[in-house]
Amino acid sequence: MTARRPSLAVVGATGAIGGVMLRILSQHADVWGEVRLVASPRSAGRKLVVRGEETEVLALAEDVFDGVDVALFLVPDDVSAHWAPIAAAKGAVVIDDSAAFRLEDDVPLVVPEINSHATRLRPRGIVASPNCTTLSLIVAVGALHAEFGLRELIVSSYQAVSGAGRDGVTALREQLSLVAGTELGTHPGDVRRALGDGALAVSSPFAAPVALNVVPWAGTDAGNGWSSEELAIREECRKVLGLPDLKTTATCVYVPVVATHSMSVHARFENEVAVDRAHEILATAPGVVLFDSPASGDFPTPSDVVGTDPTWVGRVRRSMDDPRALEMFICGDNLRKGAALNVAQIAESVAAEITLA
Amino acid sequence: MTARRPSLAVVGATGAIGGVMLRILSQHADVWGEVRLVASPRSAGRKLVVRGEETEVLALAEDVFDGVDVALFLVPDDVSAHWAPIAAAKGAVVIDDSAAFRLEDDVPLVVPEINSHATRLRPRGIVASPNCTTLSLIVAVGALHAEFGLRELIVSSYQAVSGAGRDGVTALREQLSLVAGTELGTHPGDVRRALGDGALAVSSPFAAPVALNVVPWAGTDAGNGWSSEELAIREECRKVLGLPDLKTTATCVYVPVVATHSMSVHARFENEVAVDRAHEILATAPGVVLFDSPASGDFPTPSDVVGTDPTWVGRVRRSMDDPRALEMFICGDNLRKGAALNVAQIAESVAAEITLA
Repeated sequence: MTARRPSLAVVGATGAIGGVMLRILSQHADVWGEVRLVASPRSAGRKLVVRGEETEVLALAEDVFDGVDVALFLVPDDVSAHWAPIAAAKGAVVIDDSAAFRLEDDVPLVVPEINSHATRLRPRGIVASPNCTTLSLIVAVGALHAEFGLRELIVSSYQAVSGAGRDGVTALREQLSLVAGTELGTHPGDVRRALGDGALAVSSPFAAPVALNVVPWAGTDAGNGWSSEELAIREECRKVLGLPDLKTTATCVYVPVVATHSMSVHARFENEVAVDRAHEILATAPGVVLFDSPASGDFPTPSDVVGTDPTWVGRVRRSMDDPRALEMFICGDNLRKGAALNVAQIAESVAAEITLA
Repeated sequence: MTARRPSLAVVGATGAIGGVMLRILSQHADVWGEVRLVASPRSAGRKLVVRGEETEVLALAEDVFDGVDVALFLVPDDVSAHWAPIAAAKGAVVIDDSAAFRLEDDVPLVVPEINSHATRLRPRGIVASPNCTTLSLIVAVGALHAEFGLRELIVSSYQAVSGAGRDGVTALREQLSLVAGTELGTHPGDVRRALGDGALAVSSPFAAPVALNVVPWAGTDAGNGWSSEELAIREECRKVLGLPDLKTTATCVYVPVVATHSMSVHARFENEVAVDRAHEILATAPGVVLFDSPASGDFPTPSDVVGTDPTWVGRVRRSMDDPRALEMFICGDNLRKGAALNVAQIAESVAAEITLA
């Protein structure tokens, strides 16, 4: 007897995260029965390849959820806010990658390596996946928390432009092509000429040029000088780790990198920490790669990490001022673990429930 | 009666910082009498323009310091270590931009906005100027320290490639030209193909590709996982601020920016801080520009700051967990205030001594 394989809908199949999801579904081809690809009416009728088969994209509508066991939402907040409850009402378990439900009390926020148990308690039929910045660091930090007891995080991000969607990648590409013809000396005029007026002519999701620049603002104004992405890291780390009083301060900065978010992390624990023990924990934690021998050139960078599943950790040092604090540099592919992979992992744990039921 | 204008030697006139120094000397043309340009024998005989005049570059040798009042050293550590004492023995006051003397007890380390008085006490005839990373943040932090009493700094840098000299800029330019022909999608192969083998073929001062990447390692191995640049920030901030026990933790990361270092700074003070008062202090501090209205797009980025003299500060927030801590994003041109300008400021204060004597 073969167990029934559950059916899946992928809403947002044509986006940047959708594209990564289709590759993950092809790699994990034996989990799902029928796979329906869904997008806005504008993209309906396009054909995409998943699990080796050309599959027509359906327009988002109520009836696409008929008979669907699990629905992945890889779409903007407003689309999720409207359509996820409709899919749930039709009986699908929704795994939502948007911010629409992440901080709702009756929606679990899940990182399978840390709180997979939370997936099963989903009174609204919706499970949320964290922001890509939270996901880039929390697997490593969570493993250390289990041993040392986390008390405070001070984080500065080096975020990839794909965190702002396909428009972010397009803006970087167009700005780089403006720069390509320019002699890059150290005279300020070189950079200004290349990026000044030209960059402003390129439509961009960033508030400043991102090629040959860094942009310390991500998301929207959240009051008192904070950006929404900075507060998201704070609230989501607290919720996933089950530490409602965790001290957490983030500064979010876009850098001219296509994919993979990096984080400089100061983590203070309840107990004294030793680098050797932290190395042992990180080297054996699920979903973590330890890459930490900087004098030999072994530290994670986005170009090492892009396209891989795990969170990579290096530059682990104990604070010279506080025996309870560690410094680390952490990289995670924002489109894989930071988005599509975490959603797929949650979905597969729901699939296992359905298959075993 | 006209006071005698002191004579100047610029050692390292043909380097990246030397080029910026010549522009500053041309802008402050009335300070100096004779200006001698000095470089390695390899560059001797080249002609450079300073104060509107073509000037021949002299080969570094003892006699170039004959009759020189002030000698600026803009050269690698080993060259300064050998030649600065020779120039001082000839009677020149040496202003040294290298790391050779910065932490010596009998050499003052000077940032004129903070400790200009220290310039006058120079038993060896040598005054040192801090590392570019220290200089990018210390003017702003020093102004806040004077009011609130600094206790701890936790800093993550976004360092420009020109911090690694002309070779750093060349490496970024060559790596970007490898990328220019590539379609920049979000598939990991796109980035790998562009940067993988090609970037390794480019000679580079960085331990990993720096185009479309970030590199969390600056300087040499300083033990226990720390880089030399990270320890330099710690020791130099302590010395310049006169706070030998200041808690200071730095993580230094190169980003694909040509010039201007940025810093994400967590600063904890003895006393409670208010953002309004911090704004007042920063808006009126010498050498600081406050640019802090992020919801309107007003925050400093390297493309705003490059080529300007001051330290720019934005993203000022009070920690949500500690009323004594501020978060800030600080940018400073690493070739101007971060190197040539600070040296010129120190030299001009020595010139004023000589002129008044």
